[in-house]
Amino acid sequence: MSNHPVVQLTSEASWNFIEDKFTPYGKETLAKLVAFLQDEVYPSVKLYYAQIPKDPVQRWKTIVPIVEELKVKARKLGLWNLFLSKAHYPQHGVPLSNLEYAVMAEVIGRGGHVASEAVNCAAPDTGNMEVLARYGSPEQQKEWLLPLLNGEIRSAFAMTERFGTYLHLSCNIRADTQHVVASSDARNIKTSIRQEGDEIVINGHKWWISGAGDPRTKLHLVMGKSDPGNPDGYKQQSVVIVPADTPGVRIVRPMELFGYDDAPEGHCEVIYENVRVPLKNLVLGWGKGFEIIQGRLGPGRIHHCMRSIGVASTALDLMIQRVTDPSRKTFGKFLYEHGTVIAEIAKSRAEIEAARLLVLKGLQIDKHKAKGALKEIGIAKFVVPAMACEVVDRAIQAFGAEGVSQDQHLAGMYVQLRALRLADGPDAVHIQQVGQRELTRAPGLHKRAAEMSKKEAAIMQKAGLKAHL
Amino acid sequence: MSNHPVVQLTSEASWNFIEDKFTPYGKETLAKLVAFLQDEVYPSVKLYYAQIPKDPVQRWKTIVPIVEELKVKARKLGLWNLFLSKAHYPQHGVPLSNLEYAVMAEVIGRGGHVASEAVNCAAPDTGNMEVLARYGSPEQQKEWLLPLLNGEIRSAFAMTERFGTYLHLSCNIRADTQHVVASSDARNIKTSIRQEGDEIVINGHKWWISGAGDPRTKLHLVMGKSDPGNPDGYKQQSVVIVPADTPGVRIVRPMELFGYDDAPEGHCEVIYENVRVPLKNLVLGWGKGFEIIQGRLGPGRIHHCMRSIGVASTALDLMIQRVTDPSRKTFGKFLYEHGTVIAEIAKSRAEIEAARLLVLKGLQIDKHKAKGALKEIGIAKFVVPAMACEVVDRAIQAFGAEGVSQDQHLAGMYVQLRALRLADGPDAVHIQQVGQRELTRAPGLHKRAAEMSKKEAAIMQKAGLKAHL
Amino acid sequence: MSNHPVVQLTSEASWNFIEDKFTPYGKETLAKLVAFLQDEVYPSVKLYYAQIPKDPVQRWKTIVPIVEELKVKARKLGLWNLFLSKAHYPQHGVPLSNLEYAVMAEVIGRGGHVASEAVNCAAPDTGNMEVLARYGSPEQQKEWLLPLLNGEIRSAFAMTERFGTYLHLSCNIRADTQHVVASSDARNIKTSIRQEGDEIVINGHKWWISGAGDPRTKLHLVMGKSDPGNPDGYKQQSVVIVPADTPGVRIVRPMELFGYDDAPEGHCEVIYENVRVPLKNLVLGWGKGFEIIQGRLGPGRIHHCMRSIGVASTALDLMIQRVTDPSRKTFGKFLYEHGTVIAEIAKSRAEIEAARLLVLKGLQIDKHKAKGALKEIGIAKFVVPAMACEVVDRAIQAFGAEGVSQDQHLAGMYVQLRALRLADGPDAVHIQQVGQRELTRAPGLHKRAAEMSKKEAAIMQKAGLKAHL
Amino acid sequence: MSNHPVVQLTSEASWNFIEDKFTPYGKETLAKLVAFLQDEVYPSVKLYYAQIPKDPVQRWKTIVPIVEELKVKARKLGLWNLFLSKAHYPQHGVPLSNLEYAVMAEVIGRGGHVASEAVNCAAPDTGNMEVLARYGSPEQQKEWLLPLLNGEIRSAFAMTERFGTYLHLSCNIRADTQHVVASSDARNIKTSIRQEGDEIVINGHKWWISGAGDPRTKLHLVMGKSDPGNPDGYKQQSVVIVPADTPGVRIVRPMELFGYDDAPEGHCEVIYENVRVPLKNLVLGWGKGFEIIQGRLGPGRIHHCMRSIGVASTALDLMIQRVTDPSRKTFGKFLYEHGTVIAEIAKSRAEIEAARLLVLKGLQIDKHKAKGALKEIGIAKFVVPAMACEVVDRAIQAFGAEGVSQDQHLAGMYVQLRALRLADGPDAVHIQQVGQRELTRAPGLHKRAAEMSKKEAAIMQKAGLKAHL
Repeated sequence: MSNHPVVQLTSEASWNFIEDKFTPYGKETLAKLVAFLQDEVYPSVKLYYAQIPKDPVQRWKTIVPIVEELKVKARKLGLWNLFLSKAHYPQHGVPLSNLEYAVMAEVIGRGGHVASEAVNCAAPDTGNMEVLARYGSPEQQKEWLLPLLNGEIRSAFAMTERFGTYLHLSCNIRADTQHVVASSDARNIKTSIRQEGDEIVINGHKWWISGAGDPRTKLHLVMGKSDPGNPDGYKQQSVVIVPADTPGVRIVRPMELFGYDDAPEGHCEVIYENVRVPLKNLVLGWGKGFEIIQGRLGPGRIHHCMRSIGVASTALDLMIQRVTDPSRKTFGKFLYEHGTVIAEIAKSRAEIEAARLLVLKGLQIDKHKAKGALKEIGIAKFVVPAMACEVVDRAIQAFGAEGVSQDQHLAGMYVQLRALRLADGPDAVHIQQVGQRELTRAPGLHKRAAEMSKKEAAIMQKAGLKAHL
Repeated sequence: MSNHPVVQLTSEASWNFIEDKFTPYGKETLAKLVAFLQDEVYPSVKLYYAQIPKDPVQRWKTIVPIVEELKVKARKLGLWNLFLSKAHYPQHGVPLSNLEYAVMAEVIGRGGHVASEAVNCAAPDTGNMEVLARYGSPEQQKEWLLPLLNGEIRSAFAMTERFGTYLHLSCNIRADTQHVVASSDARNIKTSIRQEGDEIVINGHKWWISGAGDPRTKLHLVMGKSDPGNPDGYKQQSVVIVPADTPGVRIVRPMELFGYDDAPEGHCEVIYENVRVPLKNLVLGWGKGFEIIQGRLGPGRIHHCMRSIGVASTALDLMIQRVTDPSRKTFGKFLYEHGTVIAEIAKSRAEIEAARLLVLKGLQIDKHKAKGALKEIGIAKFVVPAMACEVVDRAIQAFGAEGVSQDQHLAGMYVQLRALRLADGPDAVHIQQVGQRELTRAPGLHKRAAEMSKKEAAIMQKAGLKAHL
Repeated sequence: MSNHPVVQLTSEASWNFIEDKFTPYGKETLAKLVAFLQDEVYPSVKLYYAQIPKDPVQRWKTIVPIVEELKVKARKLGLWNLFLSKAHYPQHGVPLSNLEYAVMAEVIGRGGHVASEAVNCAAPDTGNMEVLARYGSPEQQKEWLLPLLNGEIRSAFAMTERFGTYLHLSCNIRADTQHVVASSDARNIKTSIRQEGDEIVINGHKWWISGAGDPRTKLHLVMGKSDPGNPDGYKQQSVVIVPADTPGVRIVRPMELFGYDDAPEGHCEVIYENVRVPLKNLVLGWGKGFEIIQGRLGPGRIHHCMRSIGVASTALDLMIQRVTDPSRKTFGKFLYEHGTVIAEIAKSRAEIEAARLLVLKGLQIDKHKAKGALKEIGIAKFVVPAMACEVVDRAIQAFGAEGVSQDQHLAGMYVQLRALRLADGPDAVHIQQVGQRELTRAPGLHKRAAEMSKKEAAIMQKAGLKAHL
Repeated sequence: MSNHPVVQLTSEASWNFIEDKFTPYGKETLAKLVAFLQDEVYPSVKLYYAQIPKDPVQRWKTIVPIVEELKVKARKLGLWNLFLSKAHYPQHGVPLSNLEYAVMAEVIGRGGHVASEAVNCAAPDTGNMEVLARYGSPEQQKEWLLPLLNGEIRSAFAMTERFGTYLHLSCNIRADTQHVVASSDARNIKTSIRQEGDEIVINGHKWWISGAGDPRTKLHLVMGKSDPGNPDGYKQQSVVIVPADTPGVRIVRPMELFGYDDAPEGHCEVIYENVRVPLKNLVLGWGKGFEIIQGRLGPGRIHHCMRSIGVASTALDLMIQRVTDPSRKTFGKFLYEHGTVIAEIAKSRAEIEAARLLVLKGLQIDKHKAKGALKEIGIAKFVVPAMACEVVDRAIQAFGAEGVSQDQHLAGMYVQLRALRLADGPDAVHIQQVGQRELTRAPGLHKRAAEMSKKEAAIMQKAGLKAHL
């Protein structure tokens, strides 16, 4: 398998280090995926953006044709829902480990949003499918999960409060680590979810609701407070399925990322005003909101990280192409012969390799003990997107002004990665958590140090010297 | 003057350090400018963007009303053409030194593009007015310079070649340093300028032509090759005035910076196809292109730097506001009580102060010997925009997702600063040049070291010791 | 004065920026100082170290001959006690401003410890002379200050507690900023100072007492607690003059900085055991300890910073010499033609220039309002030594293994600078303080923002638009 | 094995990721090693340094008793020559893979030089044993290899020329990569080795000869030029065994690292003046010098890297202990509650984890294809020591002045790591090489890009759009 195309797309050394963790099926699927991406998906990215109208209204009503074509092909090839591991989702999952999918996520990441959608592995659908597959009632699964698994509809996850605080975007992340550091502030959720008769009434003001702009989006999973007085701050929340066309659901506007609106998917501001849904739309049960989020977000962060590594790798490839392009020579020298370009390339390579290993290690330990992986995931979360931003930024610099323009994807890549440093908890939150976890080693270290001191003193004494010189 | 508002907008310490370099007129003008900016301009920025239509066609046909109103007010107040120093432009200039204007540029920078236009100090008009004031014929001055000085029209400077190489955007910068490091590659200019009878014919394909999109833009200063066979590579170029409505001038598209098109001004791709203008539109003379650019771009880079410092200062102010906002508390603590926020604020302050001093020092030496300032300007050019990017990036992080959205100006600030790391020569070019200049000190250092060695040996010997122990 | 040698030793640009802040006497003294340093001092550094025996006992008993010779010469030239400004010390001072001395301190710093001693401007004597000049009784001045001013004796300042906490080394620094952030923890002082009849009895265990190892040191200024129960934590301390040969003063050992012991001066661990001195040895009065430290340490930090800039400048000069040395060519190329050397030189130059300006600015504001300078000094304190470490480290890398060896001064330079990042308060303390001071701007910023919002809304409304779009 | 002590000493996550690459024997040996280190070696480090006299002559004549005692114990436990893999050295090696030994090297690194010597895995003996085991004649092996394997004698490797150039220290490293980038400059070797009758005569001037100071050192492996006129620059060199007591071998002085002389081992300057040895002392054959070095230095660099990771891990542990030490509280807060300490700990952890994985990955690929590992080793070489310097530096800062003193090992750790950034090729050399290797991917990337463009155009055309919009 050393000639496998993935080796060219990732790195030989990485592949050799992890090859023995792949099943034959995993290897075969990876091979098929890489071929499909190279032959069909990557060359379609340009068309995808060309098919989105510039008109500020029409662009939000568009179902981009090329991505629908790619979906049909991908499904036929069995390159579909790869994110959903049979080990955790026996009914609907595919027989791939988290580590196997992670390696695939990297090459998918090289094709950006188009590739994720093409193989039905696009956020926020992935997380929503996990929620419905794990916690949905049979009825909910039939109505919402199956069409999602079939790629017929899309979905949104409505978490972030419009008038929340700094960390609102990230409360989801910290949810699943509550028992360790309790860094999630449940007070951030302001949306109200209450029962009235056999209906649920939802009132809230959210933003950054990814997918809410897409004409194919048929449901929102809405997180809100159903029991704000509950003394256990982690039992106040519930999650409800809201059909996108329910009266009272109002898309206020798309939020922009550095001037990009990411139509047609978008990251929208949404108001839920007296939105009424039947009681059966409650997911899992009253007060289960945090439990649901905990189950939802672990793998998602790793997928983001691996895709980011794919993005960084692509940027490095582009940079290498640019600086070795004979038509870009100045003063008779290649660009790589100027300044610090080679050093930047070397550092980028080193950082990408290190980042990939950190993520894969996080997955490996996951196999052994889920708890132990939290530190690893936290590390990945603060290392990877920042690293990828840096690598893309270096590539931009190598491209000159073209690098920040619409003629290259680099500016768009940068923006997605930059946002990732804020989504699912800003870097600082993960840094603090990892630091705190390290500090939990202190008692063990003090104990070991005390024992060591005693031994040291004994050894000094035996040699006829005072312990404290 | 220690209560002067500029002290609040910049920093007390800086002001005290440079106050004695201001004339009474300079101080008075600064005071008036700060008042005008605070009372009228900064609060108008929001309206400015609201008055630009979202429609992809209409937004390029807009003359934004608020900025025209501000211009009238500014001119009445004598806050007009502040960039044009009487010392260098006796006829049209204002009695302010470069250093005095630099301090003003910082506070203007806090109001972004709107502020620059309001006081008729917006690029690329500033540089174009300098060219016409210094090199224009009386007729050219009457036809083009006066309306520019009056703020009645706008202009473009067409330098960067569409199919040039990496450094094309920056050839202008390096032009004026040619005699030291010859880093400018004159071969980059491909646009052809040739005489036919009493007309000049221009053919070329440019991009990143700032201002070319603006409906008020009435002229392009076009740089091209008139004598490509001239053995002196710095005498091959000429500059011609091209009225914007001349047949053959075609605006192809706006280039985007990240997701921003910066309408209505824009940074456009422009094709000049058999464009014909009368011979009198030649500026200064045949083969004077590089000389013109040399005169044009020195001050411009310093203005950019000072405005960038204003932008960074604004970002730091916003960050401080955010992290001390009681409504943003999480877990009962202000944001500044979390993580590394205070350290980031301290570093940002230190970096802003240092950057400002570097720029001002560059101007001060200018007073003494123009040549000596080239190193200082080079340092400013690679230190300031990168520093400002960093400071704005920290502020973005403090604002969470809101920081990258249209609800704050931070993302837009970042993009402008990021582009500045490429415009007028990428960072790397300036770093290399400054490093090369440092290396020119080597002969002097070797000589001093040799003398020192001799003295050292004599002193050792006198003390009865061998010189080489 | 543009040909003045200081221009070669510092930088032309800096000099032009500050030349107008020098008096004729200041310029003349600077010129004389530079000549003396170049002709006599710098070439004597090698001999100085050669004259210190390697024997672990003898090296502490040495009065290095060359430095005594240099002192005689310097005094004759009037290059003596330059640190003591007549403006603050009318009786004993020299007519130089703090800024003028700071510029001199930079060139003195290029000669390391030898140069400081040669012109009687070496710590800790400088601070101790300031204390005695400002707070000493006439009798104390006659007995201790005059011989110090004459360079006949040396002195120590005993502040840091052996069994204090992390911040003990830095309590002195933070003392003078107490009223702003109260970051000084007076509980750190454990040494006891109490009156018994007409004697003062001192008991304590200190370390890092610079100068305590020197055979010429005749007095220790000892800081201790005289009134530990005083509710005002800043009135519990007193300072006492302890003759170095008083019974009970025991030098335990020299502390090492990395592998250097800095003999004969040293940074010693010292025990004061029932040390008795007459009551007249109390400085200023009971409970005046913190007041004394406040007066003592302001200028000292600036001097350290300026000397550090001199060290960094020297390292950069050495680096430039090395990378342009034809005998160091590899593969036919100069070292500067490899890798990122030129970029490192450019960055080093930029960082040195910025650092110098930050320090000088701090001094300038000092002229206006002492309080305002605290932020500037804090910035200098965390920027300069870290920057200088970085620059020296780059030079080390350019020298290869020789750079870390005794054949170059670079390793020794690095170590002194590294220690400076801890002395007088670790970097982190200054970073936090500067950050905290920035946060004190928050109320003003919030007020301005509120006013701005109001104006913005009015302007939007006037234009017929809603304030919140 | 998840309770294995190594898990506490390295990290659980790492262990889980690599556990399946260990044999049962490897696991058992690792367990024994960790126990021995913790019980016997780490607590003996203090005694080791106490047993080295301070006297500048005596310290070079010392055989430190404790390390000899530890060697006896280690050998009895079978913890001996662990570096010598049976796979490569069937006769003398132990059945451990490079990866298994690498993990052991990390925990050995936590015990510094003492631990390496205790288990007979100390440089430069390790590399010399490899040379003799691979290339030595049976007679050479009997006379020199066996006593080395038995830990009865020590050895030196004389490579670096006293008057070579910048890169002399590193020519060894680059030797084994010659065929790829030819960055090794064979002209650096100046020592002459020539045959006279049945004797070899050596003349040269070397420095940084580790181990040359040790009284137990009985042989030097000396590299020199035997055929300087050979057109193949890599066949000019030979290696000769020189008994340490041969007339003409003169130890000039120990080189110091930041004030440390590292007695008794030392890194000495050595002159070989008409040194004569029998012809049988030639290793492998005339002109085989580079081949020998190529075989010698690959694994050594990885061992250094893994030991560095052990050092960094120890520094982080110490830092955590310090900042959680209740006796170090200031203002009622633990040190970790101040400033950016937690963030620094988190980053240190992340960097250590990433560095370890990079090194282990380099070893894993080694199994598959030796050539491919060169990039990985290069990355490790420039990432790991720099990272470890950084981590130790942060720990120093947390310890305050004590951190740079002889009361902690941190300053000594830093110095060893700092030197490692120069030894075996300075960082810059490895960075350039890795960058160059990345650039070799350019042709493949250009080919892929061209194919992609063609597909892209076809897809655009099929959709009815022009390829270039």
